[in-house]
Amino acid sequence: LELEGVAVRPGAEALVFAQDKGLMRQRLAELAMPLPRWRRVSRASEVAAFVAEGSSFPVVLKATRGGYDGKGVWVVHDPAAADEILAHDQVPGFIVEEMVPFTRELSAMVARSPSGQAVAYPVVQTVQRDGICHEVYAPAPGIDPEHAVAAQQVALRIAGELDVVGMLAVEMFDTPAGVLVNELAMRPHNSGHWGIDGAVTSQFENHLRAVLDLPLGDPSATAPVTVMVNLLGGDLTDLYPAYLHCMARDPGLKLHMYGKVVKPGRKVGHVTATGTALDDLLDRTRHAVAYLRGDIDE
Amino acid sequence: LELEGVAVRPGAEALVFAQDKGLMRQRLAELAMPLPRWRRVSRASEVAAFVAEGSSFPVVLKATRGGYDGKGVWVVHDPAAADEILAHDQVPGFIVEEMVPFTRELSAMVARSPSGQAVAYPVVQTVQRDGICHEVYAPAPGIDPEHAVAAQQVALRIAGELDVVGMLAVEMFDTPAGVLVNELAMRPHNSGHWGIDGAVTSQFENHLRAVLDLPLGDPSATAPVTVMVNLLGGDLTDLYPAYLHCMARDPGLKLHMYGKVVKPGRKVGHVTATGTALDDLLDRTRHAVAYLRGDIDE
Repeated sequence: LELEGVAVRPGAEALVFAQDKGLMRQRLAELAMPLPRWRRVSRASEVAAFVAEGSSFPVVLKATRGGYDGKGVWVVHDPAAADEILAHDQVPGFIVEEMVPFTRELSAMVARSPSGQAVAYPVVQTVQRDGICHEVYAPAPGIDPEHAVAAQQVALRIAGELDVVGMLAVEMFDTPAGVLVNELAMRPHNSGHWGIDGAVTSQFENHLRAVLDLPLGDPSATAPVTVMVNLLGGDLTDLYPAYLHCMARDPGLKLHMYGKVVKPGRKVGHVTATGTALDDLLDRTRHAVAYLRGDIDE
Repeated sequence: LELEGVAVRPGAEALVFAQDKGLMRQRLAELAMPLPRWRRVSRASEVAAFVAEGSSFPVVLKATRGGYDGKGVWVVHDPAAADEILAHDQVPGFIVEEMVPFTRELSAMVARSPSGQAVAYPVVQTVQRDGICHEVYAPAPGIDPEHAVAAQQVALRIAGELDVVGMLAVEMFDTPAGVLVNELAMRPHNSGHWGIDGAVTSQFENHLRAVLDLPLGDPSATAPVTVMVNLLGGDLTDLYPAYLHCMARDPGLKLHMYGKVVKPGRKVGHVTATGTALDDLLDRTRHAVAYLRGDIDE
């Protein structure tokens, strides 16, 4: 499409860094961005050498392309396990990474327009299970202000250097020594859904503003705390009666249903609440999601 | 449509009270709702008698049907002026009302569902000029809590007694002695637009929830203060460059443009801001509206 003169934003030259984990790490390393220790590998002996040179098992193997929601990522505990993974002949390439002893996972989202204007959202905490985002707390509770600013600066720098247009999510590990970049996504991202109900300007509005090169909107939070809990498909397949129950039980919740067919583990909606007390918001949003999954019936 | 079996909400039996000011006042009087002193009239002598029995000129004449945004409302200073108005042979009926010495105008909005569930929004102050709403402050600054609760109770009572389904706006006069009902609107109303950006659940969402008999959403404000200023058509007819300027100058404003052809005085958009300081929010929203009208160029 670009060759035919169509404006594609973000452009292919930026998108490739969200598509290929190898190219992304290589580029971010050139920019001196904080990264886990990593290397391209294709043989188990290379994994063993990587470990010998400064890491220890377990390490993480990742397919450079095609992964999402935990797919294409393997934790391996020894060279034999690495050998088995690397034999996948449908995977175009692999990287190995040290297993980072992180304290939690963060996401730093920014919007950037073609003219270079950029805004940074509050850094949020994401709670992942099996590589799938389950919960987001905005802002990241009790985050060291220096880590938060560092995370925003990393995201802004990446957006600028990679010429990203639209939303960029930089998923990070928080460690006592600082933040490390894990993954990039160049689009409105699950870790930004909280802003529909909890930010002055949602990521969707700012994505459109950026792509259209309109001035960007204020990314500030409108409440001290916003919690978003994903609804991953459970036992319930007809969500409507549960939806009515949850609306009636807690009128302050924002129930977002995607209208998708429910399959086990599939993201079919999310529930957001804004307020001041994280615990209260977690109780309420988790209750609704458990009810919508069919895990509880009251 | 109702005769053909179509579900019309609010129904014709409720809507007539928003359409006919005479029927509305009669019904509200039966319900002992607080009203300005009023009477149906068709001759100037009846206006003079109304004044003689307990009011003083000027008084307000209103067409019972067809008025909006100040149309169909006349302030008359003597019987001769009343005579001239009452001669309008295209007006089906008139009422006369005392001129209430109000301190300000308020609007109490509620949503009500067919099953009878109802929620009350924070009572707001409206600033009208020539019968047209210019600004809304949510909640009404410094309102006596008893007046606010009384206003909400009046609106809830009216919604219930008149079997309103959907949004109901009750426009009121605030006076030292309490609130008095001025007008009713059975729909999402200009005085509720602030909630798109400043309430947990906007009036539009709650109108749909009510009409569909879904559980209603929390009408609470999300910020201590929200200000909404209407954009009434001015000298500028191409709003787009001004729109870009205002977005860039103050990214925290919410600029709502209706896509209507600009005509002098026509409501073609509104600007909302949420925060903590009324004065600051007023400065910012008024500045944007003045710029969008072409009243200022910086």
